[in-house]
Amino acid sequence: MNKPFDPKSLEPFRVTTGPLPASRKLYSPAPGFPEAMVPFRQIALHPSAKEPPVRVYDTSGPYTDPDIRIDVHEGLPKIRDAWIAARGDSAPYGGRHVKPEDNGNVTGEKLVTQFPYLNVPRRVQPGRQLTQLQYARAGIITAEMAYVAHRENICREAMAEGAEERRADGEDFGAEIPAFITPEFVRSEIARGRAIIPSNINHPELEPVIIGRNFLVKINANIGNSAVTSSVEEEVEKLVWSIRWGADTVMDLSTGRNIHNIRDWILRNSPVPIGTVPIYQALEKVGGDPDKLDWSVFKDTLIEQCEQGVDYFTIHAGVRLSYIHLTAKRVTGIVSRGGSIMARWMLSRHKESFLYEKFDEICDLMAEYDVSFSLGDGLRPGSIADANDAAQFAELETLGELTKVAWEKGCQVMIEGPGHVPMHKIKVNMEKQLKICGEAPFYTLGPLTTDIAPGYDHITSGIGAAMIGWFGTSMLCYVTPKEHLGLPDRDDVKVGVITYKIAAHAADLAKGHPSAKLRDDALSRARFEFRWEDQFNLSLDPETAQKFHDATLPKDAHKVAHFCSMCGPKFCSMKITADVREYAAKLNDRAFSVPGEAGGSGSPRSGETQGTSSEGVLTEAERGMREMSAKFAEVGKQLYVSENGKRRAAID
Amino acid sequence: MNKPFDPKSLEPFRVTTGPLPASRKLYSPAPGFPEAMVPFRQIALHPSAKEPPVRVYDTSGPYTDPDIRIDVHEGLPKIRDAWIAARGDSAPYGGRHVKPEDNGNVTGEKLVTQFPYLNVPRRVQPGRQLTQLQYARAGIITAEMAYVAHRENICREAMAEGAEERRADGEDFGAEIPAFITPEFVRSEIARGRAIIPSNINHPELEPVIIGRNFLVKINANIGNSAVTSSVEEEVEKLVWSIRWGADTVMDLSTGRNIHNIRDWILRNSPVPIGTVPIYQALEKVGGDPDKLDWSVFKDTLIEQCEQGVDYFTIHAGVRLSYIHLTAKRVTGIVSRGGSIMARWMLSRHKESFLYEKFDEICDLMAEYDVSFSLGDGLRPGSIADANDAAQFAELETLGELTKVAWEKGCQVMIEGPGHVPMHKIKVNMEKQLKICGEAPFYTLGPLTTDIAPGYDHITSGIGAAMIGWFGTSMLCYVTPKEHLGLPDRDDVKVGVITYKIAAHAADLAKGHPSAKLRDDALSRARFEFRWEDQFNLSLDPETAQKFHDATLPKDAHKVAHFCSMCGPKFCSMKITADVREYAAKLNDRAFSVPGEAGGSGSPRSGETQGTSSEGVLTEAERGMREMSAKFAEVGKQLYVSENGKRRAAID
Repeated sequence: MNKPFDPKSLEPFRVTTGPLPASRKLYSPAPGFPEAMVPFRQIALHPSAKEPPVRVYDTSGPYTDPDIRIDVHEGLPKIRDAWIAARGDSAPYGGRHVKPEDNGNVTGEKLVTQFPYLNVPRRVQPGRQLTQLQYARAGIITAEMAYVAHRENICREAMAEGAEERRADGEDFGAEIPAFITPEFVRSEIARGRAIIPSNINHPELEPVIIGRNFLVKINANIGNSAVTSSVEEEVEKLVWSIRWGADTVMDLSTGRNIHNIRDWILRNSPVPIGTVPIYQALEKVGGDPDKLDWSVFKDTLIEQCEQGVDYFTIHAGVRLSYIHLTAKRVTGIVSRGGSIMARWMLSRHKESFLYEKFDEICDLMAEYDVSFSLGDGLRPGSIADANDAAQFAELETLGELTKVAWEKGCQVMIEGPGHVPMHKIKVNMEKQLKICGEAPFYTLGPLTTDIAPGYDHITSGIGAAMIGWFGTSMLCYVTPKEHLGLPDRDDVKVGVITYKIAAHAADLAKGHPSAKLRDDALSRARFEFRWEDQFNLSLDPETAQKFHDATLPKDAHKVAHFCSMCGPKFCSMKITADVREYAAKLNDRAFSVPGEAGGSGSPRSGETQGTSSEGVLTEAERGMREMSAKFAEVGKQLYVSENGKRRAAID
Repeated sequence: MNKPFDPKSLEPFRVTTGPLPASRKLYSPAPGFPEAMVPFRQIALHPSAKEPPVRVYDTSGPYTDPDIRIDVHEGLPKIRDAWIAARGDSAPYGGRHVKPEDNGNVTGEKLVTQFPYLNVPRRVQPGRQLTQLQYARAGIITAEMAYVAHRENICREAMAEGAEERRADGEDFGAEIPAFITPEFVRSEIARGRAIIPSNINHPELEPVIIGRNFLVKINANIGNSAVTSSVEEEVEKLVWSIRWGADTVMDLSTGRNIHNIRDWILRNSPVPIGTVPIYQALEKVGGDPDKLDWSVFKDTLIEQCEQGVDYFTIHAGVRLSYIHLTAKRVTGIVSRGGSIMARWMLSRHKESFLYEKFDEICDLMAEYDVSFSLGDGLRPGSIADANDAAQFAELETLGELTKVAWEKGCQVMIEGPGHVPMHKIKVNMEKQLKICGEAPFYTLGPLTTDIAPGYDHITSGIGAAMIGWFGTSMLCYVTPKEHLGLPDRDDVKVGVITYKIAAHAADLAKGHPSAKLRDDALSRARFEFRWEDQFNLSLDPETAQKFHDATLPKDAHKVAHFCSMCGPKFCSMKITADVREYAAKLNDRAFSVPGEAGGSGSPRSGETQGTSSEGVLTEAERGMREMSAKFAEVGKQLYVSENGKRRAAID
């Protein structure tokens, strides 16, 4: 059935490896689970900074660790194997046989080589329970929980004191973000359904990640093969490339041929959770005709993907027969592929969705492997005009109902959200989702805040993503510049990921996440102190930052220059400020007036006086200023360098 | 003094001209002012759309009108000449002589040619008043007011009824946006200081634009020469390029040589208001040493630029001596160039700022020409850490004080705002500004919502700009991808402008601007109906949209294909939806259950029944569905085309 092993096809193929600039990949054991080595990235600063290196959350997996040999034919180290085996509640079994239709019935040369070292699939032992939700409810802290707790704390550790104080500087809209994350906190959040760790027991290569409102905001990148253009190499590289720039999870939305085999290659090489939309493959199996779909082919596909190790499934079980007519007057109808497939199926048979009717069975199956639900929003709005309409919110009610069913069955659940939503309609989406779905994590696509900028929908959606992330969305699904227009290439994927890292980080900052501001502050200090390399290295995309700088000031000498390219060496406001700071700091603060105290009102705008009022405090200020002015003159006022160079303010 | 006329230097130079795709430049006379011909752009749609063309606000000036001959040596038509002359309150006069230091003392070949056809400067006649604010207070509706009223209504006219209804679909945070803009409304807003029309009487080429919270959100683009790289041609092209993509005003932040002559070329060729920061040129005149600045050189510079026709001046008069120490503990001190120049000056002399002390005189001078104030935020935060601190808000208090002074003197005023602000601290900026500055228009730079993404600061700031625009900011100053790193090139300028058009439009949508949604809806309908060319043409950047589409589906035939490049021809959710719509629309709505009515609760997820409850309404639905299903089968279920092609979902 499967293509025989063909060594010829196993020529090495290139994925992007190696550390980011000035960065080291380090690991720290999770407390209580010494074998759970949590990765993080440490960015070294210039010695003149006199600051410790900056730690950042690292999604990139072993690919950025020069000490780990990467061989995509072998796959990644199976760090969870021992954890899973030790729990003794699952066992290997024969598993389903791969069928020709799993790979679109392609054969011979057209069939992509099977991954050479497949895992033997495991599933739950009879009478046992093994989802993270079930463990959490049983009061058990798993290695995965300890791992994510430690992972979320990586930056927090640098904070020492002041965490509570920093956190207070945010508006969290009712989230409960602790100063430090304990494994017990993770357990309780999972038990309450407020967070999930998508972690199929058949994905032992996974570096666990937690998705929930009280944790760092996560982002997802979509990849996927197409019949014409994609090879195994391309897809694995898209995965590696996405996580290099910060994708926390990756969805494989393949609909082309070789879909089964390529998925194996992706999973065996993925340190991040992989999500899929199983109805896509089920549709392929029935020749692309939704009318031919049924429960048996869908169930078969679920089992196939559960065994491969997919960590979460998008299932559009909330699209019910009775909601379809609500889309009739929409400007853009049903834009979700899964939603429209099911709508077609239901209309054609005048039957309720089999996804809805068989939901209990779906839950039972997914619980056997701990595959998480991503309850799809098949009726999400595809335009500003359709935002927050009856169809969208009707489906959300059903997703709330299904969330409770899935929880009863022990399944982890997150809820997908829109879509296209103008800014003033975003918040109510979050509020309704929290209320209707019992605070299950929200996972939104954007939302796009206007429809008029195809080619820039990473930006139209980045605005909405930042806002809804702030309001409480747990994971943001990226949108690339090619959205609505074409297939994203490598550059588009990177721009999409970076844009969504910006949105997620802006959200973390605004929520008052205790460690979020550390990186901003470190970068801003580097900027202020003209540590150019540090500024590049601390940025989300060091390569682009340096490239842009080089476009204006290409020389190496400019990387240590105490000026920036906008104002040039002769004059620089930051340079003046450094001087001002040193100068003013020496003065007694009391020697200055502040608004509302003195000098801020009245009309000192007259004559050539020194602008000081007759109040004593200003006379004191005046004295101080005169004194310091003399001192300033003494040291030569040497604020400007004589070097000739470009002069220009990019902004005032 | 001035370089003699040199025909050799007057070789034609290229600026970008010609209409945007499918667009015509049209004009409509302002009611009551038939000579005030207001431009707009009309985008033709494919006949299959059966929709009228879409009108959009047009900032691009005569450059996109193929019927107007563009000669940058002659400058643009002086449309305001007659209006200004007719009012009889200003008169031409000799004006100030251009001095060598105006152009950085460059001579000979290095001196850029003087603009060949300079206007004779005008100023107010003794005892008369001519600012738009003074007219407004006197109850006079000027041609400029009628012009902007009509300009703001261009899209509204397409709305006919329903304007109030559409407007209700927004959250305007206390703005008062009327369904239609009357000239009287414009007058009253200007009289109250809530809006300005920057319109120096020496800039007769201007197509007036109104900046205020109750009008469309505007955007500004920065240009400016540098000593090394920029020529006249480059600067004029930057101007033309910026307005082609939607910049409502342009700031000339030149600090290089030839600054005076280049400014003439810019002004004589600019249909949009030009703003400057006069302290930059004043600093050049004293050799770049802030300590040598004084009132006389600054005043001389103001007069020079008033006579040239600059429409608004950024003046950092709010940076007071007593505030400087408040910046001492900042992470990034003073990042405004103007602010740091003045801080340096004050510290060096231990004196209050001459801008503050001479503010009355500055007002009197600017009122003679109707130059508007853009009161600079010299102490704006340059990092997330410094947002909303004592220094920033102390200065804002003074800007409020100065606003009232300027208003008393008859000057139009807007207020500049930050800068770097995390999302949760943005709104209070708007609220404080409105309160402290008496609702004078707010004009913000971004704000950037995180510091960690140099190279992507158009995005970090686009997020903040959309939000603060929604909250009430009247004009958004763009940020390009090169911010903090280098000098923006042509591509950067375009990306900056488009990003800010997105932010401004998203804000208009969220505020409930009555006509904003028209363009979104038109584009979404085009998308849904596979009118690819219409989708491109309606977008903010048709060139990029088409380029991205062509990258995946290059053939002309694909432009009329009823599928998109993500899902390919075989399957498409939009195509399914069109079918669903037609089908479902025929059903009686009562034949469907809606959540909360029936079928939405209980447990229909069992067995192979049709998922209908026992309630009568569903039996009726069932009957209807069966009937329609039969009909659906009859028409052949021909939803799929057999053509082979790419298949892939970019998103679910």
